[in-house]
Formats: sequence, C-alpha cells, structure tokens
Amino acid sequence: MSDKFHDECGVFGIFGHPEASNLTYLGLYALQHRGQESCGIVSGDGKRLHSYKGMGLVSDRFKRDSIFDELPGRNAIGHVRYSTAGSSDFKNVQPIMVDYARGSIAVAHNGNLVDAQEVRNDLEHTGSIFSTTSDTEVLIHLLAKSQSDSLAERVAEALMAVKGAYSIVFLTETRMVAVRDPNGFRPLALGRLNGAYVVASETCAFDLIEAEFIREIDPGEMVVIDKNGMKSYRPFKETAPSPCIFEFVYFARPDSTIFGEQVYKVRKELGRQLAREHHVDADVVLAVPDSGVPATMGYAEESGIPFELGLIRNHYVGRTFIEPQQSIRHFGVKLKLNPVREVIEGKRVVVVDDSLVRGTTARKIVKMIRNAGAREVHMRLSSPPTSFPCYYGIDTPSRKELISSSHTIDEIARYITADSIGYLSREGMLSAAGVPEGCSGKRFCDACFSGEYPVKFPRLKADSQLGLF
Amino acid sequence: MSDKFHDECGVFGIFGHPEASNLTYLGLYALQHRGQESCGIVSGDGKRLHSYKGMGLVSDRFKRDSIFDELPGRNAIGHVRYSTAGSSDFKNVQPIMVDYARGSIAVAHNGNLVDAQEVRNDLEHTGSIFSTTSDTEVLIHLLAKSQSDSLAERVAEALMAVKGAYSIVFLTETRMVAVRDPNGFRPLALGRLNGAYVVASETCAFDLIEAEFIREIDPGEMVVIDKNGMKSYRPFKETAPSPCIFEFVYFARPDSTIFGEQVYKVRKELGRQLAREHHVDADVVLAVPDSGVPATMGYAEESGIPFELGLIRNHYVGRTFIEPQQSIRHFGVKLKLNPVREVIEGKRVVVVDDSLVRGTTARKIVKMIRNAGAREVHMRLSSPPTSFPCYYGIDTPSRKELISSSHTIDEIARYITADSIGYLSREGMLSAAGVPEGCSGKRFCDACFSGEYPVKFPRLKADSQLGLF
Amino acid sequence: MSDKFHDECGVFGIFGHPEASNLTYLGLYALQHRGQESCGIVSGDGKRLHSYKGMGLVSDRFKRDSIFDELPGRNAIGHVRYSTAGSSDFKNVQPIMVDYARGSIAVAHNGNLVDAQEVRNDLEHTGSIFSTTSDTEVLIHLLAKSQSDSLAERVAEALMAVKGAYSIVFLTETRMVAVRDPNGFRPLALGRLNGAYVVASETCAFDLIEAEFIREIDPGEMVVIDKNGMKSYRPFKETAPSPCIFEFVYFARPDSTIFGEQVYKVRKELGRQLAREHHVDADVVLAVPDSGVPATMGYAEESGIPFELGLIRNHYVGRTFIEPQQSIRHFGVKLKLNPVREVIEGKRVVVVDDSLVRGTTARKIVKMIRNAGAREVHMRLSSPPTSFPCYYGIDTPSRKELISSSHTIDEIARYITADSIGYLSREGMLSAAGVPEGCSGKRFCDACFSGEYPVKFPRLKADSQLGLF
Amino acid sequence: MSDKFHDECGVFGIFGHPEASNLTYLGLYALQHRGQESCGIVSGDGKRLHSYKGMGLVSDRFKRDSIFDELPGRNAIGHVRYSTAGSSDFKNVQPIMVDYARGSIAVAHNGNLVDAQEVRNDLEHTGSIFSTTSDTEVLIHLLAKSQSDSLAERVAEALMAVKGAYSIVFLTETRMVAVRDPNGFRPLALGRLNGAYVVASETCAFDLIEAEFIREIDPGEMVVIDKNGMKSYRPFKETAPSPCIFEFVYFARPDSTIFGEQVYKVRKELGRQLAREHHVDADVVLAVPDSGVPATMGYAEESGIPFELGLIRNHYVGRTFIEPQQSIRHFGVKLKLNPVREVIEGKRVVVVDDSLVRGTTARKIVKMIRNAGAREVHMRLSSPPTSFPCYYGIDTPSRKELISSSHTIDEIARYITADSIGYLSREGMLSAAGVPEGCSGKRFCDACFSGEYPVKFPRLKADSQLGLF
Repeated sequence: MSDKFHDECGVFGIFGHPEASNLTYLGLYALQHRGQESCGIVSGDGKRLHSYKGMGLVSDRFKRDSIFDELPGRNAIGHVRYSTAGSSDFKNVQPIMVDYARGSIAVAHNGNLVDAQEVRNDLEHTGSIFSTTSDTEVLIHLLAKSQSDSLAERVAEALMAVKGAYSIVFLTETRMVAVRDPNGFRPLALGRLNGAYVVASETCAFDLIEAEFIREIDPGEMVVIDKNGMKSYRPFKETAPSPCIFEFVYFARPDSTIFGEQVYKVRKELGRQLAREHHVDADVVLAVPDSGVPATMGYAEESGIPFELGLIRNHYVGRTFIEPQQSIRHFGVKLKLNPVREVIEGKRVVVVDDSLVRGTTARKIVKMIRNAGAREVHMRLSSPPTSFPCYYGIDTPSRKELISSSHTIDEIARYITADSIGYLSREGMLSAAGVPEGCSGKRFCDACFSGEYPVKFPRLKADSQLGLF
Repeated sequence: MSDKFHDECGVFGIFGHPEASNLTYLGLYALQHRGQESCGIVSGDGKRLHSYKGMGLVSDRFKRDSIFDELPGRNAIGHVRYSTAGSSDFKNVQPIMVDYARGSIAVAHNGNLVDAQEVRNDLEHTGSIFSTTSDTEVLIHLLAKSQSDSLAERVAEALMAVKGAYSIVFLTETRMVAVRDPNGFRPLALGRLNGAYVVASETCAFDLIEAEFIREIDPGEMVVIDKNGMKSYRPFKETAPSPCIFEFVYFARPDSTIFGEQVYKVRKELGRQLAREHHVDADVVLAVPDSGVPATMGYAEESGIPFELGLIRNHYVGRTFIEPQQSIRHFGVKLKLNPVREVIEGKRVVVVDDSLVRGTTARKIVKMIRNAGAREVHMRLSSPPTSFPCYYGIDTPSRKELISSSHTIDEIARYITADSIGYLSREGMLSAAGVPEGCSGKRFCDACFSGEYPVKFPRLKADSQLGLF
Repeated sequence: MSDKFHDECGVFGIFGHPEASNLTYLGLYALQHRGQESCGIVSGDGKRLHSYKGMGLVSDRFKRDSIFDELPGRNAIGHVRYSTAGSSDFKNVQPIMVDYARGSIAVAHNGNLVDAQEVRNDLEHTGSIFSTTSDTEVLIHLLAKSQSDSLAERVAEALMAVKGAYSIVFLTETRMVAVRDPNGFRPLALGRLNGAYVVASETCAFDLIEAEFIREIDPGEMVVIDKNGMKSYRPFKETAPSPCIFEFVYFARPDSTIFGEQVYKVRKELGRQLAREHHVDADVVLAVPDSGVPATMGYAEESGIPFELGLIRNHYVGRTFIEPQQSIRHFGVKLKLNPVREVIEGKRVVVVDDSLVRGTTARKIVKMIRNAGAREVHMRLSSPPTSFPCYYGIDTPSRKELISSSHTIDEIARYITADSIGYLSREGMLSAAGVPEGCSGKRFCDACFSGEYPVKFPRLKADSQLGLF
Repeated sequence: MSDKFHDECGVFGIFGHPEASNLTYLGLYALQHRGQESCGIVSGDGKRLHSYKGMGLVSDRFKRDSIFDELPGRNAIGHVRYSTAGSSDFKNVQPIMVDYARGSIAVAHNGNLVDAQEVRNDLEHTGSIFSTTSDTEVLIHLLAKSQSDSLAERVAEALMAVKGAYSIVFLTETRMVAVRDPNGFRPLALGRLNGAYVVASETCAFDLIEAEFIREIDPGEMVVIDKNGMKSYRPFKETAPSPCIFEFVYFARPDSTIFGEQVYKVRKELGRQLAREHHVDADVVLAVPDSGVPATMGYAEESGIPFELGLIRNHYVGRTFIEPQQSIRHFGVKLKLNPVREVIEGKRVVVVDDSLVRGTTARKIVKMIRNAGAREVHMRLSSPPTSFPCYYGIDTPSRKELISSSHTIDEIARYITADSIGYLSREGMLSAAGVPEGCSGKRFCDACFSGEYPVKFPRLKADSQLGLF
C-alpha cells in the first residue's frame, strides 16, 4: 500500500488571529498551484482542534460560509496536495490530525521523507498501526513515542529520526511549530499580520492576505510560536543547504520570492541565458503558456526575435473534462492550446517551454505549430534534460518515462519533430539562479537534471523505482 | 474527544464468494435498521483490502455499479452505524482499516467496550496515536502490539485486554475472524451460501441473500475462516451469557431469529403478557407503528379488544426533514403519525408501544388520540420502565433524560396525560422471552430496566454519565 | 412526444397565510404517496409569482431553509407527481407557471384530460407552441386565449373546452381558483386555517398542518378565493358524479376522508366483504404490507382466522436501489418483504392484497410464503380483476400487461402458483364503498374493473393504447 | 418579469456527423468565454429532438459519458450563455425546444432583439403564453404562427417581424437553419467537417474539432442545411453591415477570426495605435491579464518601452469563491491579480487594459501597482471611453454605472488615482480594425463608444434604461 510517497504540496499556518481559518483559506487559495487534488484546514481554539478537508480545489471545497463556523479559533494550518492517481485517497488528505498522550496534534507537510518506508517498517514491528499511506504519518508516530516533555523536543526528535525533505507545520491546542529540513529543499516563508505569525510555502500567500514577509525559515530551523511569541531553534546537524532549483524552473508562482530570489526575474534570466546558448535565426518566439511565458520573454529580449502570443490557452481547462468517445479521440493538448495561424504562417518559429518530461506534449505542440503554417519549428527549454526522478517532493515520472534518460538530444528532436532542440546547460541554469559559474550544484539541488542527490535514500526505494524500467 | 463511545450498529461478513461486496451490500441493506448514519464495506481479493464508506443510508451511498468495481475480491465485511450528533464524524465510520506489521486488517464492530477510555489512555502513554474517537480503534492497537504469530491469538489477546460488548468481524488479506463477547450481549449469526461462510448481526440478512442460517456464534466463541474452512475457538474465561433483552423489545427486526428465538413471536408474547398484567375495559387497541405493532397484536388477541390501525405512519419520513421556521413549529410526531378519527372518536382506547424513554413522544401521541375524540386513553408498554443507561451498545439517553429514573409511574401517567399507564413487569418480560418465572435476569442482560450490569465498568465512566444528572 | 398523458398526482393550495410556502411544503409532504417523482411550489406575494421545483421527494428537494426565502408571500400552490419513465422530464414538473396578457398564472393539476392531444393539435394548427408534453399545458393555452375579463370565466371557458378528470388549482398574483371536474373523478378537499383558505387532494394534508376540514369541493364546482373571501361557481353542465373507486381500493392514504367516506374504514369493509365471498379453511391470514393491511384486518375479523405479520417490510426501500449485477439478480420483492417462517411453517395461509396487476409480484410472494413452509397458499384480492386501463389519472399499465384482461381466474391462480385465488366481486366492492346492492356503478367510476368509462375519449387514444397489444 | 433582455452568448451547430453531440460539446467548450452561466445541447436523430441543459460551465455540466447517450443523432446545436443575476433562471437556459404544428424545433440565439418586449406584448394580447423571460421565445411564437409551408419562409417571416441582433441557429427533425441579422452585429462562421456542415460563433470552435473554416455567414444571410446539402437565402432588405467593434476590443477569443480579421492581430494593432496617440516616458509596460495582453504587446513594441509580466493572474479564479466575512473583506481584484514588486519598484509604469467600465477595478489595480513601489502609474485603454449601453447583446452596465458617461477624462484619472490616463481615439480604434481614417463608424457598430445606434429601439426600452440614471 505504500507504493507512492511523492507529493507536491503547499502549506500555510497562522497563529493568533481572530480570523485564522478564513485567512488560511485565502492562503491556500494563493498556493493552489502547488496541489489541486485535495485540501484541508485544521483550526485551534486554544482547547480543541477542528478539521475540515476533502478532495478538489480550495474554492470548490470551501463553498459555504458555514464551513468556517466549524473551524473556530485564532490558530490554523492548511494544506493543498497533489498526488498521482494511485493513492489519491481521502485518507491521505492533510492536515493529518490525531490524539496522543499529550493531547491533539495536526500536521501539514510539503516534501518527501526518503526513508519513510524503512522507519514505518520499524514502527510496525513494534506494534504501530497506520491509517494512511503518507510518509507524514510516520512523523506523528515518532513524535508520539518521544518521551520529551517539550513539544519542541518531541518534534525535533521525530524529525531527527528521518531523512528527506520537509517544510512542515504542526498545530497543537496551544502552539504552532514550523520546520524546514537542513537541506532546505522546499521553500517556507515567515510573515506577520497584525501581531499574528504566519508561515506559507510561498510569499504570494502573504501578498493576498496583506501579511508582511519577514524572512524565510532557514534550512534546519525550527520556530515554535505560542501566545508568548516566537522562538527559533537549530536542532539539526549543520548541512550545506540545497534548495530545489526546479521551484525556479517551473513549480513556484512567478510572483513569489523564494530562496532569496524573485521567481519571475530568475525565470526571465533562464530565458535570456537560453537565448545566449541556443540562438537560431527565426522570425518569431512563442511561449508554451502559461509556465513558459517568463522564459520566453527573456529569450525574446536577449535574442531580439519578436515575442508573439501564438499559442492561446483555453481558460476553462479543468480536471473534469470528459473526452468524447469513439472516433474523435486524442484531443489532448488541443483542449488547452490553440495556435494563431496569422502569427505563425510562413514563419521560422522558436517555441520556448520550461522543461520537457515525456516529450509527448512537446511533440503535439510542434505539430500544431507546423500545421498552422510554420516554415521551421525550433524547440527551446529553459532547463537541462530531466533525466532523474525527484525523491524530495516533486512528482516526476519514473526514469523510464523521462525521455531524456534514455534518448539523445538528437533523438528527442526527431521524436518531437522539431527542426532543432536546445536545452539550457546546467551551468547556465545555475548562474541564472544566482550561482557563479564553476560552482555548479553548490547552492541548489538539481538532482533531477544531474542525478547528484544531496540526501541519500535507501537502496530499496531506488530499486523499486528503477524496477519500473 | 472521547465523550461518546455508544453506538448502535450492524455487522456483516462473507468469505469465499465471487460476489462478496455485492452480497455485503445486500446484507447491510437488510441490517439498515441497526444504524442509518453511516455505512461501509471493506473487500479483500487475497492480496489487498479495498474500502468504500461514507455517511448516510446504504442505498444512498452505494448508488453506482462502479463502486463495486472498487471492491473486488471474494471476501468482504461491512458495517452500518448510528451515533448521536456529537461524534458522527466521517473519521469514525467503520469498517476501520489499517496497515500493521503483519499486513492490512479491517474491523467492523457492534457493541461497546466499557473500559475503552482507560485502555486508550494507557496506549497513549506508551506513544500510540488515535485517528478516531471510536472504542474499536483501541482493539486494533492491542492487536497490532501482540507478538503472537497467529491471527487468532492476536485477536484473542486484544479482546482479552478489554471488557464489554462486541459482536465483531475482522478481515485480513487471507482470513475472516468473527467473535462474540463471553456475555453474548449482541447477536451474531453464522450461515453458508454456496460454500462461502457468512456472518451477520441478524438472520434477516441471510434471508435476503438466500444464505442458509446454520447457528449463532456462541457467546465467547471465536471463529476463524480461511480458504481451508472454519475453525472455532473458545479463548475466553467461561461466563454466564447475558444477551440483551432490548433486542427483543425493540431493536432487532421482527423477522430475525436471535438468541434462539423468533423476534416477532417474542414480541407478540410480550404483548399478550402485558394484556394479562394490565387489562383495562376498552373499545379498541392501537399500536404505535411500526415497532409497537407485534406487541399490540398480542395484546389484542389476549384481551379480546379489537386491534385497529388508528395511527397511520407517513412512509416518507426521513432524516433530512426541514421543520419550517417561525410560528409553525413543533410538528414533531405529527410528521410521522396521523390518527384515524373514525376508529377513535368516542372510544375507550388502549395504545401500545414497546417502551417509553423520555415521555415526550408518548405525551404527543396521547394528546393526538384524545384530540381525535377518544373518551379514554390508556398507555401500555411491552417492557418495564427504562431507568438505567446501557453501556453495552444501545444508544440510550443519560439517566437524567430517562423519565422513569426520576418519576413514579403515576407521575409519568400524569405527564403524558394518559388515563392510565401499564408497564410490563420484569418477570413478565423475561418469561415472554423464554426465561421461567423466578429465574429473573439469569439468561438476559436487562440492565436498562434493572440496573444490574453484568459487566462492570470503570467509575470514571459511570461518574461522567451520572455527572449529567 | 405525447405518448404519455397519464399522471398520478397530489395538489395543495393555500391563500392568505403568512407562512404559505412552508405550509404548502408540509401539505405536499403529507400527500407524498400520490407522487414521488417530482414536486414543486409556486408562491405569490400579491405582485409576483415565485417558483421552486425539481425531481425527487419533497423532503429531498426542499432541504434548506433558504429555499423558502425564494418563495415569499401569503399564497401558494404545490404539486407532487409520478409518471412512468418516458416523460418524467424536468420540463413536465408542476406547478406550470407562465406569463400571458393578464399577468402570471401557475397551475397544479391532478387527473388526466382525455382529449388533450386533439385540443393540442388544434391549438398547434393556430400557431401555439408547447414546452411540455403535459396535458395541463393545453389548459393554460385555452385560458390565455379566452377574451373574458374575469379570471373565473377564463378558467371555466378553458375547462369547458376539454374533457376528462381534473382536480386543479390555479394561482395568479391576486387569486386562487380550485376546480373539480363534473364527474369528480379525483378528490379535492376544502379547509381553513386561521382565516386562510386551504385546498388539498386529501384531508391528511389538513391534519398535518392542523387546518379544519370544511367540506369537499363538489364535482363540477369552481371556487375562487381572493382577499375578499371565497365564491363558489357551477359553470359546467350537470353530470352524474363518478368518483374513482380505486382511490378507496389502493391510492388514497388510509387516514384520509374522501368522497364522504373514511378510507381505512372502507378498506376494512372491502376485506370483510372479501371474507364473506371467498372463505377458505386456513390457519393464518397475512397482509401484503402496507397497502393490503386494512383489508387483511377486515378479512381476519370476518373470517375469524388469526391475522399475523408474516411478511415484514423493509422500511428503507427507496427508488435508488442498485441491484447487484451478474449472478445474483432478481431480488425484486425480496428487497421489500421478508417472511417470518415461524408464523408460516406448516400452516394453511391466506394472503390478502388490494389488487393484482401484472401478477409477477403476487407470484413471487406466493413462492416466498411457500418457501417459508406454508402447506397451502390462498391469494385474496380486495377488488375485482383489473382488466382495463385508466384514462382519468391513475397510472395503470396498458391492457396487454394487465394479466386479468387476457387470462381466466384459474389461469391466474396457476400462474401465481396459488392453491386458490379469490377476487372481490364488483357488487361487493361497491357496497363496501357505500353503494347499495343492485345499483352498481352508479356512484363510482370503476372503469378499470368494468370497462364502463363515464367520459368518452377519442378513438385515437383508445387505438394507440390498444395498439400495444 | 421581462426586465432583462441582454445576454452574451455563443452558439454552435453541426448537421450530418455521427458524433454530433460530442462535437457540439467540444465546440461549446471552445466558446466558453462567451458565456459561463449555463449551457445546453439539443440533438436530432432524424425523427426526434433530444435536450440536455443546465447551469454552469460546459465541463462541469457534461461530466459523464452517459449524457451523450441521451443526445443521439447526427445533428445538434448548442449554446453557452451569460446573464446578470436577476434572470439567470434555469427556465431561460438555451437551446429552447418546443413542439408546434410542424413538429419540434430548437433554437440557440446570440444577440438581442430590441423590440422583443413590444412584440411579446402584442403576442400576449392574442393569447400567447410565455414560459421564459428570454427575447428568443418571441421568435418561436412568430415562427409557429407563420402559415408558410417551408421552414425557411417561416424562419424568415419570424425574423422580419423583429429588429435587433441575432446570430441564430435553428434545429428541426430534418433541418438546421443558421441566420445572421442584416447588420451582422454578432459573428457567425460556417465550416465543414468530413461532409458535415458546422456553424459557430467563432472560428476557435472549428480549430478544436479540426473543422475547416469556409467563410462567415454574411450579414442578412440565412443558410438552410438538410440531407441534400446547403442553400443560402437573403430574405432581408439590404442594410449597411455594422459588426460589433467590441468583439475585437474585448469579447472574442484572440485566436479567432471574425469579420474578416484575426482578433489577436487587431488587438495588437489597437495597442500600437494607443502608443502612437498616448506616449509617455516610462520604464515598463504592464498588461492587465489576460484580455489586455495583446494590446499591451502592441503598445510595448510601438513605444519601445519593455513589456513585463508585472501582474500575475491566479489561474484558479472561479465563480464560486466565498469571500470571507467580517473584517477581512474586499479582496476583490487581489484574488485575481498579484503584482511582482521586483519589476515595479521604483519604476515609471504604463498599465494597459482593453477598456474601463465602472473604474472600480482600474482604481484597485493602480493602487496595487503603486503599493508595489511604482514611481508613476499611467493607465492606457485600447478603446475609447465606454459611455453608452449596448442593446445588441453585450452585457454592459446601465449608463449610470458607466463612469465615462458622467465624468471627464481628468476626473476619471483622479478617481482611479493614475498619474495620467489615455484612451484610444474612435478613429484610432476603427483604423486598427481596418477602417480607413475619415470613414468612422461606417463598417462597425461602435454605439457603446459613440452613442450612434445603427438599429433604433423603442422609446420604452431607452426610457426604462435611462430611468436608472
């Protein structure tokens, strides 16, 4: 039952505000891009915790005012989550809330513990039972088994017993604890709003609720917030931080600031660097909307080739689309994108996307552009080939499905039917994100591109994943 | 969070049938009267367990054929449940399914453990976490902590660590285990269907699926069923059985056979005995439908007073009824019952019900009959005064709300505005259920009438319950 | 599109009460047995009409208090409806509400116009368009085309242009009009509640809202109610009334009074008469619940054979039941009824039902009783053979499906596998309903038994119906 | 009840394809931007019409494959619709389908009849009844009253009896008719797909289903399609066409081609012209996404000021958003847009939108940009001041709410707190849309900017609308 431990998620927490659950709802709404499959809020009124969660988008799930009556109190944490089909059960929806000897505790987790299965096996052998297939439940068992009298120590003890990625928020009747793993894989920001403390995966959540962004929670830092204020701890062994470069490439919202940089700015710089590395004589640059737009603008600026909205996105694309049966199948990317023939016809076209995973979508887009009359189609990617799966919380396919893990760049170009293809170099990517040339991989985890995993994971996991090949 | 441990429930299990989940669905449908608030099925295909559950009636929840595609396999258990408002959470819906060191296990429980809170406290102090407020979760923790290599021993070990009432079914990847507590408080029947074994709270579930009723699971018996057949165990210390007399009085379906007797027949005999004990000169006997009808028929037969359908029940009464606001309130029992003036007007009326709890409904019914023109209204109850709460799985109100715990019979008659009231005697009730005169309480638990509790419960529980007074 | 004009329905109206829509909701709830497929309310606030309607039961559809905010005003009419699959469209849900030259008008209709298709054809040929397939829409067209200045005249003019059965209520901004056709096929009662006028298909609706039953609207009477009170008109040619005997046999609720008689009393008398006509030596009498119970009680009283609850009804039978697939099919009547073996085994059984339509259900019940151990099974019906379809508002199957239209009584007995069968005679039925012997058919329409249709219908309709044979 | 006749809509039709309803669904999905409130499809199988419609988005409403089983046949029409709150009733959802003397007919209408109320009054006075408050129902009455034997003549007769805007599709059992009013206010395109004929409001619907765009239906043209092919008619008096310029400015999808021009290209040219007319020294140009982006790109190109994504749109904005209560109100535009401080801080900013209606949103955006640190904020609009309501099918507010109908440009700049404001001139707008300078208004309806209404409407309508001032 534990075949799937990878999640993409967003977390939010607020402590000490009279409208805690309302603001958490808004925060999750701003973080919706980090997980569209399920969402939940746990609030605390000082005496008890209250939970409301379910499948689907935040705005679909929290539809009635009366829901907030069930979430009273001045403290709240929330979670949005995405996972692939198999284990997208209701039972795995976060925040997870349990009772234990010290009372009630809820937790919202972004990231992935690489040794969760091993620790879970150990726990099961001492008699523990598991209600979910989520790695997060392991942490709660460890925390409940701790003999420490302070919540901070219990949380630290639990986290020191596992390895991996976590930007995580705990809520008890009287405290909120926010922790970022020593590598700092996932972002986690700290803010204030009228005297309340706020934490969120990305600063765009602060912007919406008009909270002030104070600083990021540091890699390896634990902050404990109670009615007396905030205390900061560093319980973990010092480690060289390795925040996830893919947050810049694709995942984070462009209006957020993470890892000390503004995402939109980095993304444009990735495009500029791409133009420097992979120039081509062309008439027009198109973006694959919406994630590819900032890099495309950078590419256009640097190359001098005009940027046009040649691929129009349907705004009503949703998860529930029923593809008609029978002969008229395979609408795929057409449901999402439509080319503007007038800006493409007879032109040499550069089309920029952030990354290329399986290649099937890129192939459809290239064909779509060619069918709209392009003379040439050149694909440009604002990141290197994605050849390795992520074990730290991004839901990448297995290696087998990653086209660049088994095909040369020329083969990929042929497969997607492009006249040429150009991937941004690893050095170019890192320098665009602020790492000086020659210092590659130092500041970021770029394992999905390089295969250099900063935190080791058990053989078993790698094998099971590789076993898919 | 554990303020409510009382549930009324029905359980069902089948092992070794190609349509296991379909048949479980039908079994639960037949047991719907034992719990209307939530329902669930866990099926097993030999390798994994699969779960589907939710709030509401069986026929509302299992609405689409496709649900059964999610419940594959030849084995399944199911559960219907009722609980009062406070803790009717989704999280408490059964069967509960967890993973532990030996694999997966699911459990469906009818009854109530009297020391669940104490055992839970102990477990929490050794680091256990709880996801529900149900007493059943305690059992799973105990079972998972057992070091025994056999499932039978683990189940027995867990059950020996608790006290109370349980007719309970466990399902693992390869086995089904059905157990009835040594007192045998709740019914549990064993049957066969084309080579498959079946268990159910009541035999009416067998009738619907056309399974053969073999025998009841004995008090204190544990049966373990796997692909090699069934084995019976007696792991518990011998105890004098004390099945619940209230199942005969009210709870079980009249077409079921439980505790060796046919319910309808017992219920009629209760009415006959009532007529012997509390005769009155009258023109007509009415039943409070539907539960009071068999006793009323017995009363009419014995007394010679004609039985008439003088109170008509609205068949569309449901849980979702919105009572209109403002001036037109308090429709209460009128939504359910309507008198037939022609059979009441000018008559001396006996009205028979199975029991009287708070007295508010009886009061409304007496007034309704009088408003329809009755000259006299005599209330007869086919059980003694209900003066004590049940701790073994029937959802009775607290003592404070039980009118007969604090009022004399005369006071009750005055309160409900009846010309007379007559409760069946304890001896009469027991003899109608097959216990010879002078042997009162020997074979049955009648604690709700007598206050003689066959299984002791911790002070704490009694206190908290009494604290309500 | 007009293949189905037959509906079973219930209507309700109230004029001049501050809680008009709430009370209409309660009235429809009491009339739910007359139609479970759809329901609706139109209210009027003196200036505008407001509508809320939909598919399903009253208590399912009117689930939120806020619905009543959309139905303001002191006047309201409502409708519950059943129709067979084909045309159970949302578009046919009543009340129908339209705008026309004089303002807005809504209508709720119980009954069936026999010449609706012909009148509709005529209207279409003069340019009328139809949005529903309901016969009621025809009436609204006729009313809108009337040049009369008074609403009463317009209604009368429209109704005089059609033939058939109607107990019908109209609501405009300022008036409510209730009419019963000259034959008085369907019931319609008039009541008062705190100064407001109330009309309803059956008096059980008055009982629930505690309205006073004044009298029935007479066959051929039209009452017009406005703020100045009520006026009664007799616009139609005098006709011998012929109320529907089937309302007594099966359709009306037993606690209602219709056509001057109490339904339960008539139904018991039908059973008594049946016992006189078709005695058999037997040990026990069973009812097919719930509709057969009153007649069974009469049969038992008259015959002296004891009445037992040998067939127990599942209270949770609903419309949404999903019958499992594959091998375990055909649960049919077992989902609804379960026999009590103890009262049947070894016995000679009489089983009483109100009527027998296709024979398939009776066949299953007889087999069910025999499987429960009965030595003999004798079927008794408290009405004559149903050999003819109804064109006046009861949804009977076509002649082809009515087993008694093509089979002798002996053949029917063999088909249902009963040891004997006994139908109540026509004379017996009529005398039980208050018609003296030798005066058959005078006071009632019993066309479904006799084929004597009091209102002729066009060839076309009879043909198309017969065409099914 | 007829206070609202203005709708924005999209229509689609296909005749002669085995997957007609599936393709109509896809067509409506591509036209979703033209109406998000309700949607519907009517299909025809040669003998009968079949309808499915409801409130909400196409992808939410058509969620199950089985819906298409209810829409069989080779012909279908569909409709998406938006209307303001008041009359967004289910009853007004299109296509409207009725029966009349010649059979069944369904209609899907984009546009607005200016004299609908008057014609409706006339029809009501001759006895017609109305089930909707839609102007389209008037057309069906007229059509049904026509004595002509040919469908084409009946349609033409009905349309000649009204005035206003209509791009409209009719479907009968055997024919599809598509008509565009003589002024050609709304677009309507004709295409082919494997031998089937297709019509759609915009060509983007053809792109998705891979139909070939043949040509537009001409202003004043009626095409009748049956199994023998297509015939074109010109039943109306010749009129100078006046297609709606606002389709270019805002309403149509940028990838569509309407009125002979590609929308994205026109929209960019509007931005270029705006830059020529209203230059300002600035550091960066921002778009109000998404509708303002093409004009912004044109402005940036022409002005040489760099274009940046300084306002990021939340993709999960939906209709169901619950704004939290109490203190944290008025999130308004913040829920939709978030500024990127890094590209704004310290800059002189030009922000481009397509139009400015009430000014409240523009005011919030200007403040949002200023709060993000802009030194100057200059608002530019790619159309002239919107001072007059539309009576031809665009849902503009009443004059009173249009800020430019009562305020000078300076006052507007002050209200929205911009450092400067610049509206595109009427001449500039028309020339960008392909009308030579000095020829203003000739080819387009620009009544919302100029007040020059090409089709007169009754006093009554203008008054009632003006009465709002």
